[in-house]
Amino acid sequence: MKATETSRFPQVVIIGGGFGGLEVAKALADQPVDVLMLDKHNYHTFQPLLYQVATGSLEAGSIAFSLRKNFDDQKNFRFRVAEATQINPEKNTIDTTIGEIAYDYLVIASGSTTNFFGNKDIEHHAMPMKSIPEALDLRYMLLQHLEEAVLKATKEEREPYLNFVLVGAGPTGVELAGALAELRNNILTKDYPELKKDEMKVYLVDFMPRVLSAMSEQASAAAKDFLTKMGVEVLVNVKVDNYDGETITFEGGKSVRTKNVIWSAGVMGSVPEGLDKDIIMRGNRVKTDNICRVEGFENIFAIGDVAAMITNDTPKGHPGVAQVAIQMGKTTGKNILHLIKGETTESFKYFDKGSLATIGRNKAVADLGKIKFQGFFAWVVWMFVHLISLLGFRNKVVVFINWVGSYISYNGGSRLIIRRFVKEAVPQDAEPLPNSD
Amino acid sequence: MKATETSRFPQVVIIGGGFGGLEVAKALADQPVDVLMLDKHNYHTFQPLLYQVATGSLEAGSIAFSLRKNFDDQKNFRFRVAEATQINPEKNTIDTTIGEIAYDYLVIASGSTTNFFGNKDIEHHAMPMKSIPEALDLRYMLLQHLEEAVLKATKEEREPYLNFVLVGAGPTGVELAGALAELRNNILTKDYPELKKDEMKVYLVDFMPRVLSAMSEQASAAAKDFLTKMGVEVLVNVKVDNYDGETITFEGGKSVRTKNVIWSAGVMGSVPEGLDKDIIMRGNRVKTDNICRVEGFENIFAIGDVAAMITNDTPKGHPGVAQVAIQMGKTTGKNILHLIKGETTESFKYFDKGSLATIGRNKAVADLGKIKFQGFFAWVVWMFVHLISLLGFRNKVVVFINWVGSYISYNGGSRLIIRRFVKEAVPQDAEPLPNSD
Repeated sequence: MKATETSRFPQVVIIGGGFGGLEVAKALADQPVDVLMLDKHNYHTFQPLLYQVATGSLEAGSIAFSLRKNFDDQKNFRFRVAEATQINPEKNTIDTTIGEIAYDYLVIASGSTTNFFGNKDIEHHAMPMKSIPEALDLRYMLLQHLEEAVLKATKEEREPYLNFVLVGAGPTGVELAGALAELRNNILTKDYPELKKDEMKVYLVDFMPRVLSAMSEQASAAAKDFLTKMGVEVLVNVKVDNYDGETITFEGGKSVRTKNVIWSAGVMGSVPEGLDKDIIMRGNRVKTDNICRVEGFENIFAIGDVAAMITNDTPKGHPGVAQVAIQMGKTTGKNILHLIKGETTESFKYFDKGSLATIGRNKAVADLGKIKFQGFFAWVVWMFVHLISLLGFRNKVVVFINWVGSYISYNGGSRLIIRRFVKEAVPQDAEPLPNSD
Repeated sequence: MKATETSRFPQVVIIGGGFGGLEVAKALADQPVDVLMLDKHNYHTFQPLLYQVATGSLEAGSIAFSLRKNFDDQKNFRFRVAEATQINPEKNTIDTTIGEIAYDYLVIASGSTTNFFGNKDIEHHAMPMKSIPEALDLRYMLLQHLEEAVLKATKEEREPYLNFVLVGAGPTGVELAGALAELRNNILTKDYPELKKDEMKVYLVDFMPRVLSAMSEQASAAAKDFLTKMGVEVLVNVKVDNYDGETITFEGGKSVRTKNVIWSAGVMGSVPEGLDKDIIMRGNRVKTDNICRVEGFENIFAIGDVAAMITNDTPKGHPGVAQVAIQMGKTTGKNILHLIKGETTESFKYFDKGSLATIGRNKAVADLGKIKFQGFFAWVVWMFVHLISLLGFRNKVVVFINWVGSYISYNGGSRLIIRRFVKEAVPQDAEPLPNSD
């Protein structure tokens, strides 16, 4: 299937409508190219706030934005709900869930998915949180387990429903731990007068010696201090052994009875088939040159989480953060135009704007270059940066109102169980649209 | 299971957290009773705006409100996610999905569900819209069918995806028809540049001679006129014969090829087992006396959609609208207290505040007693009434912002397909929580 049968322009196919894919498409607006974006969802997800969807503080619609609507005014943009399964570089096409699609330039911006490091037990029983359906499943599970805890007669029976174990103390784990601690401290006994605050426990586990290990030692120490004061049990230098759905065990013998294990301990690139194994690097990322071009190809690019640009400055590639994807997307959009026009390409240079992580009300940590600060001001900066980064004016306003409401009331969020969560069910998220042809 | 083992107060069990159940619970605040509310969802649904969730104009969270949160400050209130399956009046208990529960007073406020009048084909293939999960399924189906239409090569192949047939021209059908027409007129070709406006068709079908037949002839005529001008094909005096998932056929021979049939042609009360067939009236409603007490019982009440208060003034009972449920709930709360205190009960008197229905932008119809008006002012009244009736300040603000945004942009709503819709799947909505005992 050729999406634009009548086209006279080179067709740029972008796999993925995340931070990177969006920027490529925007950079190609009003240019002599046709842009076709594929994504398995019809919306862009603002991943940094997924954890607030999981705890019910924000509705999914507040951090998602329709990809079609976003490009309503871009005449050369087309969109399809589809997943790319295979790249056929020899004929410049990709196989997708809606048929074969031809490209002149291909941008792999398919992001990353949760890495369970091959442990099938953990993959089966633990909850990932990389997409909106996953964040909603997590919310429904959490709330359903609180409902079930209410029905149990003894503390021992309630225990596995009220223990929350977060594996991986990167920003996702830290932010979720803080949000769960606030839910316990401020909301639990209001909504569930039958439950006791100290029966709900939040554990944050990492095999590294400190939380937020990608940030400064100062930020790590402050985050750990904030979390501990909020009642989170921070377990560093602790490696998970296994999880069977009832008990999580750690190397060294300690274990916790829990039905709630949230896994954010690693990610791996989501790469379609068809590329040589030699250019698939650590973390399933695609090796690119310094203009984000996949090694060995003239017209295939990889950006963001799925890309590993291996240079002397970046021997392991760039960190898997939104800013890298955004900046790579902008450069790649420009370079595709340069290539079409026969101009010299620009090499990619990452400008690190710094890192932020929030722990809770008035509590965040910030490493902005050499300036490092923690506490209230970092939290204000965190909120400001996240608000302005959200797609769509409506989303900005709605999120702002929610945050103000939560700040005033200590009881924000709606905590609705829209659907019953059943872990054993096949995630609907994983199902592609049926083939149309 | 007795929910409040240590209680000294009479236990009032309320089945359902809809408009009626909420009012009963509120009326019992700070009184010497224990209140236990059951609902299969953990939230109250503002049903009058469900159709806006279906079209993606509003997020589900904007028209739902956590029942636990709503009663955070009411000390004698308890809540359980549960469905009542059977009433055992001889021992004053009910069987539920979380075990047996004892009551001193029971209020059946379980509302109504879609009535397919026994047609299993229609029940299997058509979409109901009585709950948030159903409205979301409808949204996902509608958007997915637009995505699929984009992939079809010919007009003939696209046709069944782009024909929308709404059966039942009550407020739900009329409001949904208007919203779909606006989606076609204002949004379709912006979001889906591949589709043509006139290929999407909206049919509104009713076997009665006019739309909104419960309202005045003036309102009906205006509504029909509005709808026709917006491009809706209004088919009155037309009875549905059958629907096989591909083609809907009408008595007399006409048919429409469509994968989108939305059924709002009737409701029936959701009554637990255990009541005598003699007191189950037309539409599966429970016969009550003039204080909403179920015929033959001293301590069982039925209110709202599930109740049929048969009196000389109301030979068929009251209409199934929110105001009836609200007013019955208030009276029932008071009467339960009267009964406990040995006081005289108050008989129920319905005060009809009138009817409103909106068709679209600047278009609504209003019958307020003898005052009947249509158009812009009716639309303003409609919006105002619905905004103030929504539970929760946050919801009011968020809905207001959405409406203002939509009014300015002609392109409101987020239209996200969060989950793939599969009609054949068992609705998760229907699944009760597992028994706890």
